[in-house]
Amino acid sequence: MEKRSIKRATLGRLPTYLEYLRSSSESEAVSAGSIAHALGYGEVLVRRDLNLVCSEGRPKIGYPRKALIYDLETVLNVSGNIPAILVGVGKLGRALMNYRGFRQYGFSIAAGFDPDPGKQDAENEDCPVYPMELLPDFCREHGVSIGIITAPGSAAQQVCDLLTENGVTAIWNFAPCRLRVPKNVTMRQENLALSLAHLVRCANEAKASCEVCDDV
Amino acid sequence: MEKRSIKRATLGRLPTYLEYLRSSSESEAVSAGSIAHALGYGEVLVRRDLNLVCSEGRPKIGYPRKALIYDLETVLNVSGNIPAILVGVGKLGRALMNYRGFRQYGFSIAAGFDPDPGKQDAENEDCPVYPMELLPDFCREHGVSIGIITAPGSAAQQVCDLLTENGVTAIWNFAPCRLRVPKNVTMRQENLALSLAHLVRCANEAKASCEVCDDV
Repeated sequence: MEKRSIKRATLGRLPTYLEYLRSSSESEAVSAGSIAHALGYGEVLVRRDLNLVCSEGRPKIGYPRKALIYDLETVLNVSGNIPAILVGVGKLGRALMNYRGFRQYGFSIAAGFDPDPGKQDAENEDCPVYPMELLPDFCREHGVSIGIITAPGSAAQQVCDLLTENGVTAIWNFAPCRLRVPKNVTMRQENLALSLAHLVRCANEAKASCEVCDDV
Repeated sequence: MEKRSIKRATLGRLPTYLEYLRSSSESEAVSAGSIAHALGYGEVLVRRDLNLVCSEGRPKIGYPRKALIYDLETVLNVSGNIPAILVGVGKLGRALMNYRGFRQYGFSIAAGFDPDPGKQDAENEDCPVYPMELLPDFCREHGVSIGIITAPGSAAQQVCDLLTENGVTAIWNFAPCRLRVPKNVTMRQENLALSLAHLVRCANEAKASCEVCDDV
């Protein structure tokens, strides 16, 4: 079931459902209405979200709690540990390497890569930082398909090419430049400055609930 | 003209137009077609973007270059220096304080605030870090309306309340929790884990150009 297409906003709510179900009472069945009430969401929204994940909901009864938890855990891949790598261990790169939130979706940054020997640290248990030359072997040995680029803009395209040549098919680019990728590669371009500028424009227009800004 | 509503994707392209116009030849008029060709955008898209910014475009002639540059600079507020403050000077907070890209939209992080004396540094010329007690005075003296929260989730709501009580109307929250804000406040909830999870789902579904992922 986890292959079904799930929108970003829905995906953002799934960990909240899971956390609530794990912490709430031990009744066998749980209704969309009770979840909606507890979390402050609309009931229609909750039912639509959960029906994407779990096919066992029944009118007037609800969802079997254990099955719903199991299906949420499966879709969110919570017990997974899919490795991503990061290239460019500056301040932002290091902040991402230290960010623990990726685990709730079953990801971890398995290693960083940087050409600067001063930033390399192969012994770091949490997240080692290796020289660039080791990237191809690391990708092959760990089956890496996710790459995060926090390198300077001037190096980003070269880094991107290196990643895609070594099997990476999902790229998250924080460098302030547009990158060319092969057709089989999915790219997310992160633009922090644009995010802030757009938020402030929304605030100036007094849109309290700006659809694009409030993306969770 | 800068008060007109501009979508996030359009806003993301405006600095690219401006950079191109500043660097390209000195002809008096410039057409949407020539800009589209140079930047690899569609001509209809470019015309629609530029008409939002500049009302002086003429069929078969194009836009007066200087007026277009002026209007782009005005909308982007490039000569402005609107102060934002950041609360929670951990690794992510420090990375954002060091991020220079905000300037292309006329913003700067004027100060950081943190309760930990070990992180406070009032003498830092680029971006001083003050104790929390100084936040109200700083906001009042500098007319701060933008707050960035990089505090831990457990402190985020308290920080958020402090910001809104002191005149902040635009909040960018990186803490992994939903925050309650007054009706006149616009909030952007950043969820880095969700961004990565959504990118990987898009990649697995082999959507090379995922609309939500590719948000620039």
